[in-house]
Amino acid sequence: MTASLRIGLIGTGRIGQVHAANIAASPDAVLSRVADPFLEGAVRVAEAFGGRATADADDVFAADDVDAVLIASPTPTHVDLIEKAVDRGIPVLCEKPIDLDIARVEALRPKVASAGVPVALGFNRRFDPAFAEVRARVSDGEIGALEQLTIISRDPAAPPADYVAVSGGIFRDMTIHDFDMARYFLPDIVEVSAVGTTTFDAGAREHGDFDTAVVTLRAASGAIVTIINSRHSAVGYDQRIEAFGGAGSLQVANRSTSLVSVSSAASVEARSPYEDFFLQRYAEAYAAELQSFISLARGGASASSTFEDGRAALILADAAQRSATEGVAVAVDLG
Amino acid sequence: MTASLRIGLIGTGRIGQVHAANIAASPDAVLSRVADPFLEGAVRVAEAFGGRATADADDVFAADDVDAVLIASPTPTHVDLIEKAVDRGIPVLCEKPIDLDIARVEALRPKVASAGVPVALGFNRRFDPAFAEVRARVSDGEIGALEQLTIISRDPAAPPADYVAVSGGIFRDMTIHDFDMARYFLPDIVEVSAVGTTTFDAGAREHGDFDTAVVTLRAASGAIVTIINSRHSAVGYDQRIEAFGGAGSLQVANRSTSLVSVSSAASVEARSPYEDFFLQRYAEAYAAELQSFISLARGGASASSTFEDGRAALILADAAQRSATEGVAVAVDLG
Amino acid sequence: MTASLRIGLIGTGRIGQVHAANIAASPDAVLSRVADPFLEGAVRVAEAFGGRATADADDVFAADDVDAVLIASPTPTHVDLIEKAVDRGIPVLCEKPIDLDIARVEALRPKVASAGVPVALGFNRRFDPAFAEVRARVSDGEIGALEQLTIISRDPAAPPADYVAVSGGIFRDMTIHDFDMARYFLPDIVEVSAVGTTTFDAGAREHGDFDTAVVTLRAASGAIVTIINSRHSAVGYDQRIEAFGGAGSLQVANRSTSLVSVSSAASVEARSPYEDFFLQRYAEAYAAELQSFISLARGGASASSTFEDGRAALILADAAQRSATEGVAVAVDLG
Amino acid sequence: MTASLRIGLIGTGRIGQVHAANIAASPDAVLSRVADPFLEGAVRVAEAFGGRATADADDVFAADDVDAVLIASPTPTHVDLIEKAVDRGIPVLCEKPIDLDIARVEALRPKVASAGVPVALGFNRRFDPAFAEVRARVSDGEIGALEQLTIISRDPAAPPADYVAVSGGIFRDMTIHDFDMARYFLPDIVEVSAVGTTTFDAGAREHGDFDTAVVTLRAASGAIVTIINSRHSAVGYDQRIEAFGGAGSLQVANRSTSLVSVSSAASVEARSPYEDFFLQRYAEAYAAELQSFISLARGGASASSTFEDGRAALILADAAQRSATEGVAVAVDLG
Repeated sequence: MTASLRIGLIGTGRIGQVHAANIAASPDAVLSRVADPFLEGAVRVAEAFGGRATADADDVFAADDVDAVLIASPTPTHVDLIEKAVDRGIPVLCEKPIDLDIARVEALRPKVASAGVPVALGFNRRFDPAFAEVRARVSDGEIGALEQLTIISRDPAAPPADYVAVSGGIFRDMTIHDFDMARYFLPDIVEVSAVGTTTFDAGAREHGDFDTAVVTLRAASGAIVTIINSRHSAVGYDQRIEAFGGAGSLQVANRSTSLVSVSSAASVEARSPYEDFFLQRYAEAYAAELQSFISLARGGASASSTFEDGRAALILADAAQRSATEGVAVAVDLG
Repeated sequence: MTASLRIGLIGTGRIGQVHAANIAASPDAVLSRVADPFLEGAVRVAEAFGGRATADADDVFAADDVDAVLIASPTPTHVDLIEKAVDRGIPVLCEKPIDLDIARVEALRPKVASAGVPVALGFNRRFDPAFAEVRARVSDGEIGALEQLTIISRDPAAPPADYVAVSGGIFRDMTIHDFDMARYFLPDIVEVSAVGTTTFDAGAREHGDFDTAVVTLRAASGAIVTIINSRHSAVGYDQRIEAFGGAGSLQVANRSTSLVSVSSAASVEARSPYEDFFLQRYAEAYAAELQSFISLARGGASASSTFEDGRAALILADAAQRSATEGVAVAVDLG
Repeated sequence: MTASLRIGLIGTGRIGQVHAANIAASPDAVLSRVADPFLEGAVRVAEAFGGRATADADDVFAADDVDAVLIASPTPTHVDLIEKAVDRGIPVLCEKPIDLDIARVEALRPKVASAGVPVALGFNRRFDPAFAEVRARVSDGEIGALEQLTIISRDPAAPPADYVAVSGGIFRDMTIHDFDMARYFLPDIVEVSAVGTTTFDAGAREHGDFDTAVVTLRAASGAIVTIINSRHSAVGYDQRIEAFGGAGSLQVANRSTSLVSVSSAASVEARSPYEDFFLQRYAEAYAAELQSFISLARGGASASSTFEDGRAALILADAAQRSATEGVAVAVDLG
Repeated sequence: MTASLRIGLIGTGRIGQVHAANIAASPDAVLSRVADPFLEGAVRVAEAFGGRATADADDVFAADDVDAVLIASPTPTHVDLIEKAVDRGIPVLCEKPIDLDIARVEALRPKVASAGVPVALGFNRRFDPAFAEVRARVSDGEIGALEQLTIISRDPAAPPADYVAVSGGIFRDMTIHDFDMARYFLPDIVEVSAVGTTTFDAGAREHGDFDTAVVTLRAASGAIVTIINSRHSAVGYDQRIEAFGGAGSLQVANRSTSLVSVSSAASVEARSPYEDFFLQRYAEAYAAELQSFISLARGGASASSTFEDGRAALILADAAQRSATEGVAVAVDLG
């Protein structure tokens, strides 16, 4: 029997707490260290899910009871923390994105490539059972060659204006998940076209961001990906995919919060709203993502997305930003 | 090319008008005579759809331009009119039921059986494309042996109290369609159990009728049919069937009035209400029923229900009435 | 903060293991004792989920670290074990049914009624979020007065013949859940009619049981409940409910194992099969049932079904058996 | 009572025959003249639906029993025939597109604008009850301001290569319907971006056309329209729309050929394939389009699309072609 993987967690915000709970619940891992400059948060997570709290992330890297690191701190810290993990030979799972600046990503890239230390990126949706099922069935040829992939991805509500100010824009903070999902099916994207507008969100307008966007990606195979985004959605978190091929199509529906439907004189078969947001909708995905990282950290097989996937998603986001701004299709080379 | 079948219509109420329109629209038939003691109604139908109007049904039987008769007059007139048609050798399609009194049906039965004149009963639902499709797929063995047939059949609103007073009761005027549908799948019914209550309709209460009823039928094969009836339905006409067998099930859904659904914060995927009532829901069925009768009248193949089917449905209705009243399962012999 | 409720578990078969895991996962309870005459089973459960193992149930009652007992042993042991718990003043959650013999239930009834010790029956479906939601919405008047309740309940596959031999028959071992569900909505049932046949299961035929059954229940309000049962279902566990009232209807759909649907030239919008069986379909319900029992054991509010509910379900099962055998509607008095 | 509108039909191909049947079925119109250089076709249509046949379209314009003209001849003839109708003051309904060459359209435009003769374009989908319902409900504010309109439009099978050779390309012969549908909701389109690829159709590859395309349109309001096209679809004609706004969304589903669904061990709730192609899917729309034109020709209210709408759709198609070819977003001015 293998000993539990001892994981050090850096960052105890909303997503850090999800990871902490999943580590505690996993039969294959324990939480050994919890770091957050906001020490009170670290202490609270450690009390609930195990491990020793610290305000200093360096304590995690210096500890002798850390087999792997999970980075859930703010984006600007990611590159440095990944580098420290790689330098120390500690497998790392880092939340997306690697950084908002592709130059910093490119600067770190050679070290990651040569170090041989597992670096996984937190694109949780790859681990959603429904998306994974569709990908597997597409790979099995059930719908013939994949010709069109349509991703509808709408958040329930626009983020606060001060988040918009530093998020890097809709393509880098929100669509980046969809870019990775596109590449989950079609890794070799060669061209990006995007259109963005601002129709309802004052925060987006203030900071020059879009609240509404559509991106099309051309894959080397000729397949076209369409990503439809909105910063709000009255029905709840709207997360749908349609994979279309010559022999048919596979669709992932939204998950209703209930199996109940109601019929009345006004309307029939009306169902309950969809799951609120990502913590609910992707709860299973976060747990599966952790298990995949545990396997990766131990040198086993893994479906985790990689540093290269994180870089590719950012390149696509940059290209989309340029396309939407300049009105040109932007060729990309993800090689 | 065959000449059009010349049809005499007796009765120009709501259902008579449907038949008249279908005769006019059929490439294989013309309306030659239209009879109704309420002459104004006959004249109006004749003007709209063709034929000569009369107040006297006997004129239809005496006419030399009537190849077939369609009886859509009140139930108490059916037995006499069928008998006249059979005596004159004129094929007849008669609306259900043959009569409310099984004794009158039995008295007519030998003549119909020996005459060799086509007599069809107006069980329109056999011609609904969806029900016919399910029956064909069951026959093809798609779900294995048929073990359970569930029929949900609810009218949109309770009929007027004065109709309830003379209708013969819910089993004879409403469930009778479901009895025929049951026999469309499982002709050999051997036992009837029924429970009826009165929960909302003052008219039913006043006249000793039920507004809510459930009937179970046992077929010789061991299959069980469940019929769920209500005299009202807020969502519109509720007409569903589930055929269940060892290898799966086939279901007929209600038909929404629109392909549109709406999603909002309150509920998702809410569709428009169902078709109002039988004239809308079974419009195709009425046209197909007529075509089948035309074929029958010409000596061709036909899926029309017969006098025997009409008799069987009434026997089942009588048995249900007795079962619901006396609290016993009633054995029936439809042979 | 309240100390964890220390629960002694009696019986470590399939359902006992589910309860053990839920106790271990609950923040409000711990497993303190585990009894099974098959000691190896008890040991395995204790190792996995906590507590001390024993082959003798009396050890559980004698222990000083047992605040409540959960009985998941074979049906014939239930009455004696409930009695011991009541005698010792230990709150008890007992799996359904209380017994197959109503005489034994009636004999125990006065003691339970007068003892003031909480006795809950394991009708897990009351805790299914969807069924509970429908009941709450019906209570809120969303569909008007409840007029018809339709319960479709089909197991995935017929049980082994030797189980059928001792189960008490389909009404006592399977429909009993549906009887309780009926009473969850309409406690005051006054009449039972049932029809049962044997169409596919050799075990049922051998032991004089039915594999296919339909039961109708008349409530004091005039509402009619229809229960449609089969011992097998090709699509997986089939568990649907429709509550119908004058203002509309509420429906609980089956839960598909996936959000994915496929469309091809053969068919469109085809979804994955339903959850296999009760352990999957009602996983949330079992956990909620435990929480409700914990609250009950502590003297708090509880939605748990009671000894009286267990008795009522058995009376309805007996009545259904008699009705199906003798062909009569059977009046019942659950008071 | 108004006399029937006497309509001269030019062109008796597939779509001409649909119009002829609808004219014959309309209570408000008769088919008076039928022209086709392939005289046999004209004769056949005239025999089936009325009117006098001719090989020469000029006979239609010269006739004294033609109140309106319906042009269903090949695209290259449209401009000349519309001009003749306008010159003679005869209301005209012309199939889409006006022409493949925008220069010819612009040349004719002033005459149409000044003549005051009703000129309707055959964008049948505006008359589909479902699309019309969605537009009305959007206009009523049911989903708030319209922010995103998603149109999925896939033909069942790629056209013959020789059709592709002269069709003007996917944007001008197929997407043109979707451009008009976009403008049905959002008339004021200001920018077009398109990506097209060739993934399966040899004919498209041979003639430099696309078989797969996605177009995004930016409306003056900031709303974004996404059009997803394919030249083939295994499930049948795929025609869906989603209108998304801040308060919810309205969706138009495909129309299955049947109300039946099947559930088995393999999959559940599988429905029958969708309607084959436009003649089936839009049968009601063609009839409604004709009725609207009849009203227009008589000077009444009309929802028909106009010459201006036909011009706008062609401008959008040209812009899409340029965008897909040159990789730039193309600004358009439809004023």
